[in-house]
Amino acid sequence: MEKRFEISLLLDFYGELLTEKQRIIMDLYFNNDLSLSEIAEINNTSRQAIHDTIKRSDNALLVYEEKLKLLNKDHELKKTFDNIILELDELQNNIKDEKMNQLICDIKTQIIENV
Amino acid sequence: MEKRFEISLLLDFYGELLTEKQRIIMDLYFNNDLSLSEIAEINNTSRQAIHDTIKRSDNALLVYEEKLKLLNKDHELKKTFDNIILELDELQNNIKDEKMNQLICDIKTQIIENV
Repeated sequence: MEKRFEISLLLDFYGELLTEKQRIIMDLYFNNDLSLSEIAEINNTSRQAIHDTIKRSDNALLVYEEKLKLLNKDHELKKTFDNIILELDELQNNIKDEKMNQLICDIKTQIIENV
Repeated sequence: MEKRFEISLLLDFYGELLTEKQRIIMDLYFNNDLSLSEIAEINNTSRQAIHDTIKRSDNALLVYEEKLKLLNKDHELKKTFDNIILELDELQNNIKDEKMNQLICDIKTQIIENV
């Protein structure tokens, strides 16, 4: 996985465990694509200070993932549910009863809304 | 939810974020049902020290849940998938085709193994 993209995903999972300041800076850098200099200007600090905050936050996110593995578990769960959706499609293609077809639709919707 | 049971569940989700010492003491108290005095004796320390460690760890787990809400999300996901299993049962009761029935069985197994 591309590093920048991975950090952005880890922020979704563990952002709340960072300090507010760390979270805002990480969000500006990884989600809003601002440069270190631009973030430094907004925060009235040096480019180096922002660089250090990002590096520390980045390490914290990786440690959280090493311990809780939420991103990894989510990835595995999504693979399973992609497979289930394919199987439900196959069921739907083979079942002509309208009521049963509606039931399959409903199951698919619930899965898609939850993963 | 009963407090003791809730803490035991929170330990499953966030135990890795505690220190090793905290995790061992919490496990002895909440999962193995040892008394404060028994845990104090094993750790060669006072009953009060164990009490303080449990209180601190307990608070840490509640703060993690307040921030990440993994227990809450897991509970919601389980409710959804309990409902999906019921709907798959209904499908199975209405579909006589053996191959399709096997497919439904397979979907149910994947869901049960993942939640």
